[in-house]
Amino acid sequence: MRFMALALAQAARGLGRTAPNPPVGCVLVREGEVVGSGFHPAAGEPHAEVFALREAGEAARGATAYVTLEPCRHHGRTPPCMDALIAAGVRRVVVAALDPNPQVAGQGVAGLRAAGLEVVVGVRETGALRQQAGFRSLITRGRPWVVAKYAMTLDGKVAAPGEGGGAVSSGAARERVMAWRNELDAIAVGSGTVALDNPAMTTRGVPGGRDPRPVVFDRQARSDVQARLWRQGAVLVTTPDANASAHEAAGVTVLRAETLPDALTALGSLGVSSLLLEGGPTLLSAFLEDGLVDEVRAFIAPKLLGAGLSPLMAPARPMPAAQPLRDVTVEALGPDVLVTGLLSEIPRL
Amino acid sequence: MRFMALALAQAARGLGRTAPNPPVGCVLVREGEVVGSGFHPAAGEPHAEVFALREAGEAARGATAYVTLEPCRHHGRTPPCMDALIAAGVRRVVVAALDPNPQVAGQGVAGLRAAGLEVVVGVRETGALRQQAGFRSLITRGRPWVVAKYAMTLDGKVAAPGEGGGAVSSGAARERVMAWRNELDAIAVGSGTVALDNPAMTTRGVPGGRDPRPVVFDRQARSDVQARLWRQGAVLVTTPDANASAHEAAGVTVLRAETLPDALTALGSLGVSSLLLEGGPTLLSAFLEDGLVDEVRAFIAPKLLGAGLSPLMAPARPMPAAQPLRDVTVEALGPDVLVTGLLSEIPRL
Repeated sequence: MRFMALALAQAARGLGRTAPNPPVGCVLVREGEVVGSGFHPAAGEPHAEVFALREAGEAARGATAYVTLEPCRHHGRTPPCMDALIAAGVRRVVVAALDPNPQVAGQGVAGLRAAGLEVVVGVRETGALRQQAGFRSLITRGRPWVVAKYAMTLDGKVAAPGEGGGAVSSGAARERVMAWRNELDAIAVGSGTVALDNPAMTTRGVPGGRDPRPVVFDRQARSDVQARLWRQGAVLVTTPDANASAHEAAGVTVLRAETLPDALTALGSLGVSSLLLEGGPTLLSAFLEDGLVDEVRAFIAPKLLGAGLSPLMAPARPMPAAQPLRDVTVEALGPDVLVTGLLSEIPRL
Repeated sequence: MRFMALALAQAARGLGRTAPNPPVGCVLVREGEVVGSGFHPAAGEPHAEVFALREAGEAARGATAYVTLEPCRHHGRTPPCMDALIAAGVRRVVVAALDPNPQVAGQGVAGLRAAGLEVVVGVRETGALRQQAGFRSLITRGRPWVVAKYAMTLDGKVAAPGEGGGAVSSGAARERVMAWRNELDAIAVGSGTVALDNPAMTTRGVPGGRDPRPVVFDRQARSDVQARLWRQGAVLVTTPDANASAHEAAGVTVLRAETLPDALTALGSLGVSSLLLEGGPTLLSAFLEDGLVDEVRAFIAPKLLGAGLSPLMAPARPMPAAQPLRDVTVEALGPDVLVTGLLSEIPRL
């Protein structure tokens, strides 16, 4: 178990950098000692197993490999890891989760077993599935895993009525959001947020951090072409007939789709495997109405506002039809409470 | 510390039963052994110290007394506990919190010290203050300590739009509410809740439980005189000119006040020291606008509703002016999260 935790920590270093590939970590253990470890740093780069085997060298012989995802059996941009593990003399492979990629899909494990290696599957699977949610969503559904984030008061308000604002949650909450920005591929806002805040959706204060790609959902393509997001490579998602000529002239990537599901599929084909929804109530409500929110991360600040804006305004339905979250976590974060949970099941094999 | 925890547990047995007196517990300890314990069961009954001294008998000589509230020095319906402790030969008295009652107010402690006893004050004071919030509010402010309770979804909704409903929170949350009903003197609802639900605000499923006194806030006195609450001794709080003749004819206690603060003072003079606000958003908003909510206990159910009713609709103010809660606690309760905190300071000496 603890070696798989190390492998998951290795994999986490690749989060936000590997799409359309999964983040994967590998730890090689011989006689209770870690002899090699590695992670997949980016698409086109070697896989985690390769880095771990390189580090271990001869010590890989007879070792146990802890891998967060089933080793690949196919030739992609790199040769199959299954073969590399066998060739290095690894004796036992512990896998957190099987790979839903139809080119792997249990064949990696089957191949290792056929070569005489002992294989264990499912160690710390839940953690691995959450870490790989983006990859799993993209490869099985063709669209990114959508994480909705918001911060509300204890009376359920994300903002006071009217414009302008003031932060709802604490510095600790904002730090956590920065960590997420570093880990997710893209970050979505609505045209309202762009008009109101002209935000820079960058990752700040994370050592070695990188910025997610901003995505602006703007059906009418009216967002100011001078807004800061465009300089960060933001994608404009708009409708087929919207006039986005100013954005196109400015070199903005424009995706056109009639519906939100189509827009997400278009983002998927750009290689976006995970999307952090940081927009306001309008965007979140639209995503939820279409059943497109996969995960919720809500900060609750222990204060009462009174009149104000709710994080969600739609759909209308009776209380018993409210959507329950699964795998709920609750965490005290500075003065705030962070509640997370899943609305979708993470695609498995 | 652990003996004061026992004393607080003793005191808790009197919660909801002692007004206008405080809940108090006492534990007598000699050579590390508990030799006597007691609590104040109801106004007019002996104080906690008396029960503990009776149980200890001769063993009280040289013992340490742990008392959750400063022993009284005045003759009320019972003789002063200070004298009883001295007469019994108690050597040391540990007090959780001083008594803000002007007739005590540090004189109990001073008297014990003058008699040569060692006195320690402030052990587990926070827990004692919370337990005694009702008493402290009534004796210093002349009105009950008001605890607002609500249950909302993770998107901040207490109900779907329109009438009818379905529960927001789980069985575990409802059990906790029943425990509170058993511990608070009175329970407030608005006329809307009476009209919509015709609720029985009773304490169910608590062994030895007793029902709080219902209080119906109904400015127009239009609540159905056949509603169940009146049969439970509910108080009607209405305005000076409202026609409450039907309620009066039915024997309902009618309080008339122009404002909410006046209404609370009137409830205080009925001996109500603590009030659990279980009404809907209208009543809660009105209390909050007048600064009359002292404590908040909010259940958050991990599910998303969409359109719906917010727990609070007023006042209107910018986010930086939101009212922060102090002494916040967060607890997982079944599937739900319970967040509590104070908006007022509990009156101390």
